[in-house]
Amino acid sequence: MPDLGIVGGGQLGRMLLYAAWRWGLDCRVLGRSSTDPCAEICPGFRTLDWNDTEKLIHWGRDISCFILEIEHVDVAVLEAWERANKRVFPSSQTLRLIQDKHKQKEFLSGKGCSVADFEYLSSVEMLAPRHASGFLKSCREGYDGRGVFQLGSAFPFREDLPSFPCLWEKGVEIKQEISVLASQDMEGHVRFYPPVEMVFDPDSHMMDYAICPAPLSEEEKERAFSLAAQVLEAFDSAGLFAIEMFHTVEGEWYVNEVAPRVHNSGHHTIEGHPTSQFEQMIRLAMGYPLGETHHLFFSATLNWVGAAGSSGSSGPFEYSGLQEVLSTPQAYPHIYGKKELRPFRKMGHVTVLAKEPSELHEKLSFLRPRIRDGVRLIGSSLG
Amino acid sequence: MPDLGIVGGGQLGRMLLYAAWRWGLDCRVLGRSSTDPCAEICPGFRTLDWNDTEKLIHWGRDISCFILEIEHVDVAVLEAWERANKRVFPSSQTLRLIQDKHKQKEFLSGKGCSVADFEYLSSVEMLAPRHASGFLKSCREGYDGRGVFQLGSAFPFREDLPSFPCLWEKGVEIKQEISVLASQDMEGHVRFYPPVEMVFDPDSHMMDYAICPAPLSEEEKERAFSLAAQVLEAFDSAGLFAIEMFHTVEGEWYVNEVAPRVHNSGHHTIEGHPTSQFEQMIRLAMGYPLGETHHLFFSATLNWVGAAGSSGSSGPFEYSGLQEVLSTPQAYPHIYGKKELRPFRKMGHVTVLAKEPSELHEKLSFLRPRIRDGVRLIGSSLG
Repeated sequence: MPDLGIVGGGQLGRMLLYAAWRWGLDCRVLGRSSTDPCAEICPGFRTLDWNDTEKLIHWGRDISCFILEIEHVDVAVLEAWERANKRVFPSSQTLRLIQDKHKQKEFLSGKGCSVADFEYLSSVEMLAPRHASGFLKSCREGYDGRGVFQLGSAFPFREDLPSFPCLWEKGVEIKQEISVLASQDMEGHVRFYPPVEMVFDPDSHMMDYAICPAPLSEEEKERAFSLAAQVLEAFDSAGLFAIEMFHTVEGEWYVNEVAPRVHNSGHHTIEGHPTSQFEQMIRLAMGYPLGETHHLFFSATLNWVGAAGSSGSSGPFEYSGLQEVLSTPQAYPHIYGKKELRPFRKMGHVTVLAKEPSELHEKLSFLRPRIRDGVRLIGSSLG
Repeated sequence: MPDLGIVGGGQLGRMLLYAAWRWGLDCRVLGRSSTDPCAEICPGFRTLDWNDTEKLIHWGRDISCFILEIEHVDVAVLEAWERANKRVFPSSQTLRLIQDKHKQKEFLSGKGCSVADFEYLSSVEMLAPRHASGFLKSCREGYDGRGVFQLGSAFPFREDLPSFPCLWEKGVEIKQEISVLASQDMEGHVRFYPPVEMVFDPDSHMMDYAICPAPLSEEEKERAFSLAAQVLEAFDSAGLFAIEMFHTVEGEWYVNEVAPRVHNSGHHTIEGHPTSQFEQMIRLAMGYPLGETHHLFFSATLNWVGAAGSSGSSGPFEYSGLQEVLSTPQAYPHIYGKKELRPFRKMGHVTVLAKEPSELHEKLSFLRPRIRDGVRLIGSSLG
């Protein structure tokens, strides 16, 4: 009988597998495509029609514990597993609250968590001049900046808008985007990882790099943790949560979004912390005590994304700066094994460690421009 | 076209896979049994009749690089791959020198490496009273203390002797058993890991625990490194070498055995060093620069072996002390996923890290007696 079912076959699932296998766990993975990052490494990988709820439920019949690495799963599947007394992370209740961006915000706001002003817009006709300074997000879609749209031009807005219904959020002057990874086990014990600052590219809206611990004063850190604790209390459910926050120029703190799963803002925990986010997820899913979360090193994470204009399938691909990464002390490349290249698709990441922030920034300055060229087919020159 | 072929499907292969997959490498594994540790985690795993040289050669036809995780492979297979311009670690030449314990010792001695007195004994009739204080090792077999026999009783020796021909080695009064892991890339760059002390159980001859860095004076460390450098020079070949040495009570240093591969005395490098031995092996096989080898932490390794009297197949198994390991800061369990339990079979290990030796010894004193009960079938009570 398999120990663990991983729902979603992407890089997060792949890194969950590494952690689970180290402990001898027998794993099954449910993916969407035979080219998923988990496909080539897991004999227990399979694909199914994700719209066929009955088939998904049936897939899990012999598995006692599930970890989702994505959020686009029919909640009815999770409910069926829970009725059969299986452990599911996140719970169906949490997933339901998370899946709709407007419901999520309303829920958090109702629980007293600080969020920026927001509105529910059922259709494009509801847009008004007052929405100009803000963001539109499709309620049901959106990932990696897709489905998120920054308004700001003159009304009526001319740009391609995301599909409605939408959540509108008031724009705030952001000083820092912070992510706090929080873990809560089945007995209610809680452990936070140190806050991470995610620095975004203003043009692509993609993450440029992340840094841990985030440069915050003790007081600011306390604000971040207390907001994270409020969010955990609101969900009142065992699991791992990545809580993304805005720290504004005015010193306000708002919850931006919550992902109830391992998250790309936590990759540095693999090398930089006693317990990686993946191991932590496995610990709490298997009923083991939570591991330590403090930082052993200062760390930064850089993403390898598909180069602008790049595309191709099966590779081989060239990861810009890989040689330099491999020559840099305590720089750890992670390549996800994706077989299809698209512009801005996440293909891998690099974690860089240092004993001191100054050393970290030196390494970061050296590697960042080299990794930024991204991933392309070997032999192609896209300038 | 696969990037890497791993020859041998045991726990060493499994840990090589983790390192290779993190870098997106496409791997094939050749094992002996469908219950090998690599079998359940690698879609590219297969078994073959290892006596069928032609089939083994054919298995590797599409693979450009091979890493052996065992030594019992027909050298003709490696030679065929080398003739086809494939990279093979260790080289056929190295493997040939290593496979026969007497040839290995003769080779090392001929190259000026310090070894204890030894003799070649073609048959049991060659045993004489002068051999009483010494060890007998089958030339062609022997692994994990099997095939190694300590003499010492009155001549004629009555005990079950290993199969001949044998290497006889004079017993020396051992103060410490030291292992130095050395890596040499294809351009001749060399990096040593800090020496490890392996402490053996006097009754079972199994490793009790290993500790890194070994407690050695600067001068002793230099002796260990210079002996390791001599061994590397002797083999004159790219690869990873675990060089096991005796440090005697009289202050002499002797090479005991050389394993031209990743080794159980290097497991602590996964968590305790910037570059694990597995990553280092992959680096040099793929032509990447060698990674840093110094220790980031003080570390100890404990093995989980099958409990005395235990046996069983498919499990589930109970790993004694697992709960305590998971509650100890920076203690990392590794479970190999073996499906068959036998007394003293290596089933897993635990690496413990600490910032100071005193803290390490505290953790070790706590965990050692708990892990020593070993592995048994759940529900069995073997007292």
